[in-house]
Amino acid sequence: MVMSPAQDTPTAMIDRVASLLQVLDGQHHCTLAQISRQTRVPRSSAHRILQRLVDLGWVERHGFNYSLGIRMFELGVRVVHRDQVHGAALPVMHALYRSTGLTAYLSVLQSTDILHIERVGGWPERAAGWHLGGRQPAVHCAAGRALIARLDEALWPELAVLQPPTSRAICGPTALRRELYRVRDRGGVAIDNEGCVPGTIAVAAPVGPSGAGINAALTLCGPAPAVQTDKAMAAVHAAAMNIWQAAAGVPRRRGQRALATTA
Amino acid sequence: MVMSPAQDTPTAMIDRVASLLQVLDGQHHCTLAQISRQTRVPRSSAHRILQRLVDLGWVERHGFNYSLGIRMFELGVRVVHRDQVHGAALPVMHALYRSTGLTAYLSVLQSTDILHIERVGGWPERAAGWHLGGRQPAVHCAAGRALIARLDEALWPELAVLQPPTSRAICGPTALRRELYRVRDRGGVAIDNEGCVPGTIAVAAPVGPSGAGINAALTLCGPAPAVQTDKAMAAVHAAAMNIWQAAAGVPRRRGQRALATTA
Repeated sequence: MVMSPAQDTPTAMIDRVASLLQVLDGQHHCTLAQISRQTRVPRSSAHRILQRLVDLGWVERHGFNYSLGIRMFELGVRVVHRDQVHGAALPVMHALYRSTGLTAYLSVLQSTDILHIERVGGWPERAAGWHLGGRQPAVHCAAGRALIARLDEALWPELAVLQPPTSRAICGPTALRRELYRVRDRGGVAIDNEGCVPGTIAVAAPVGPSGAGINAALTLCGPAPAVQTDKAMAAVHAAAMNIWQAAAGVPRRRGQRALATTA
Repeated sequence: MVMSPAQDTPTAMIDRVASLLQVLDGQHHCTLAQISRQTRVPRSSAHRILQRLVDLGWVERHGFNYSLGIRMFELGVRVVHRDQVHGAALPVMHALYRSTGLTAYLSVLQSTDILHIERVGGWPERAAGWHLGGRQPAVHCAAGRALIARLDEALWPELAVLQPPTSRAICGPTALRRELYRVRDRGGVAIDNEGCVPGTIAVAAPVGPSGAGINAALTLCGPAPAVQTDKAMAAVHAAAMNIWQAAAGVPRRRGQRALATTA
């Protein structure tokens, strides 16, 4: 196959590299033939690009199989570990996990998804989208609803088209709006009671007040029988406030108490 | 500036992208002028490449500043979270952290460095190289010595050229060899007593026996007064064994006890 000049531009080249990495992102191991087929990049070009990516550590090769390389991990974690909110959240999340046994998540709103950028604890054990770096539809999880409820109502999304993940999930735009008003009534705390994963309760609060420019939420979650919702609400609300103050460099007054939730 | 044909090859283009990301890896925020200067990529080319990387989410732009983007994080965590040893280690590390209060690390040997691919807990709080994705010279940390001690002696590195990080660090090739023999005598468990960070004790064991093809070590570490070395040695040895068995799919015999350490 002869490449057209358009395929030789820098942008086209970057797109080729991106499409190769995209394939390796979707599958653990791939052969050159699979990569070439899925990216429609000719085998010889794909081989040349992969060879360079192997040299850079972005891709690893074991026999005939290629996979993402450890250098991608090193670059990737840097993105989050430089973030001031993440730095402020990590000790708070460790303390919450040790004291409550519940799993703590720090998550950000990315378009219509929630993306988990930190997780301390192991619950839920094997549910799609709950791992570090995992994504979930924002309307279907507590962190997402805590962040959506802060937005102007004109920006509240419609829910009708989304497949509810469990029989207890919020279904349809009316139920969603009602739930978002409830979040506001609770002072910003959102609760998901087995709507996302059967047997799991999650309680989330946004980090910092609306308008503070922070787009993150803190979640505590665990198996339904282990989660005392009132205590979890108070804990997550106070912790989110502490994270925001630490990230923003707000000095804490001595004896200052966390804002009480209004629910 | 007119690019020579050599700069137009796919490999040269990948190297340009890599060098741009490398600059953003080293600094949190960079302007186009800084990136162009540091990479020696002409400003117009750098701008075009960065624009495409922004579209892909690999780079983020805030005003005049560029930084690594959230897509790099998503790709990066996948590298580690697909790893079987990591999957087996995570619940064990959570349990260790909850029961001992000590911070648990899972680390791999990368050439002469130890690279931390998982961390549960917050100790040490602010020491270079101890964060997730951080690197440390292998000879100077417990995880590194636990993995080096398993190697054939011909591969044991010389230590003389490395700057000891603290006054209690192992200094010189003779002390290192003596320490590596001590690790072997302890059944593979390495101890670092304030040699890496003042006030910090770390205890590490390799995951699985030599020859199992796993290049990872488990570490427990904490502030010196809080670490009971004997208990930490037994805990880390047993936990490393459990991780290896879970990763390798070895069924555990009922009532099976962890191998005792020989120190």
